[in-house]
Amino acid sequence: MNQQDQLKQLVGQKAVEYIHDGMQVGLGTGSTVKFMVDALGERVKNEHLNIVGVSTSERTEAQAKSLGIPMKSVDEVDHLDLTIDGADEISADFQGVKGGGAALLFEKIVAINSDKIMWIVDESKMVKQLGAFGLPVEVIPYGSQHVFEKMAARGYHPVFRKVNGEFVRTDSNNIIIDLHVDPITDPHALAEDLIHMVGVVEHGLFLDMVNTVIVGHEDGPEVIETRP
Amino acid sequence: MNQQDQLKQLVGQKAVEYIHDGMQVGLGTGSTVKFMVDALGERVKNEHLNIVGVSTSERTEAQAKSLGIPMKSVDEVDHLDLTIDGADEISADFQGVKGGGAALLFEKIVAINSDKIMWIVDESKMVKQLGAFGLPVEVIPYGSQHVFEKMAARGYHPVFRKVNGEFVRTDSNNIIIDLHVDPITDPHALAEDLIHMVGVVEHGLFLDMVNTVIVGHEDGPEVIETRP
Repeated sequence: MNQQDQLKQLVGQKAVEYIHDGMQVGLGTGSTVKFMVDALGERVKNEHLNIVGVSTSERTEAQAKSLGIPMKSVDEVDHLDLTIDGADEISADFQGVKGGGAALLFEKIVAINSDKIMWIVDESKMVKQLGAFGLPVEVIPYGSQHVFEKMAARGYHPVFRKVNGEFVRTDSNNIIIDLHVDPITDPHALAEDLIHMVGVVEHGLFLDMVNTVIVGHEDGPEVIETRP
Repeated sequence: MNQQDQLKQLVGQKAVEYIHDGMQVGLGTGSTVKFMVDALGERVKNEHLNIVGVSTSERTEAQAKSLGIPMKSVDEVDHLDLTIDGADEISADFQGVKGGGAALLFEKIVAINSDKIMWIVDESKMVKQLGAFGLPVEVIPYGSQHVFEKMAARGYHPVFRKVNGEFVRTDSNNIIIDLHVDPITDPHALAEDLIHMVGVVEHGLFLDMVNTVIVGHEDGPEVIETRP
């Protein structure tokens, strides 16, 4: 395991300490979350921890089920106590960009139904201002060429996300347009503009949401309480 | 043909007078539009009218193609000259509710890419204030129970649209929640609230959009120019 993965694993293990018996827990998507779900599977197996997981992607759902974690759909639970997810960038004032794994829509749906939100990241994700990673936006395929052109006209430097020449499809069968606005000086204004564009389903700006951030450093995980 | 259908047919025939050679035309969805597309097919066949149609639903696409109207995707045209669509309600100040046919998302995508928008309706659709018809909202299935509950808590009286006990699915495989806010006293405020709800893809309020309304009356179609 390389050093970055070791940091991610330590962060994942730290995060599951916040999961207690009886909780309904949102499970995010991504490489750091994968280590967290592994650690959660260990606790369910060894401590018979009685929890319900709610996943944010087909990938996480499959991993969690394979580890014996009881899973429900977000619509089968009345609320979530805690959602633990990764992030692609976290700014100095704890705003986030997510969607590198194309799961931002389900991640946001689960997050906004959670009492508390925790993001777990390696230290490379902590930035002064958002923007360098790119901002993923989930878009309805029909009309997406026009959405793309409007984004380009606004100076957002859009790029259709493709793999092997094919549009990446989300779990909702939509596509992703990555914007390259660097730095994002006013994330709230950008979010407002994007959500009003017809054809935009959701964007990767997660604003005023996170309560706890766990950052992986060489000398161990750092826990930051960001919002009460 | 009953009297209401006769009015719709006359309105559809009147509408196609606004379609000229060389135009790229958005073709809406619904019972009045069906008569308009029939009339357009006649003009393409008899006058060799050279136009391109862009449809807003799989239904309209199939009908137009069967009549020999050349069709393209919205992403294959640089712009639309005119979109002709129906509406479920049009208020005294010419705001609209659409989505009775569950095609509101593609209808709005086509409409916002059109230089001019025309709605064609029978006179029963002209109302003082919007609301009696219900307001269709297209919603991502995942998390829709929570969206429903938030709408209920806000007093929007949501109802999942079902047929034979099954959720109606849109062309994007989403579901429809019909809101029953009557009257809608501030459509702009309602639209703002809905578009910010995570999981809402689009809503059926079409505000500040329509340029021409053709209304079917017993004594013939009435053309109203609403916005320049």
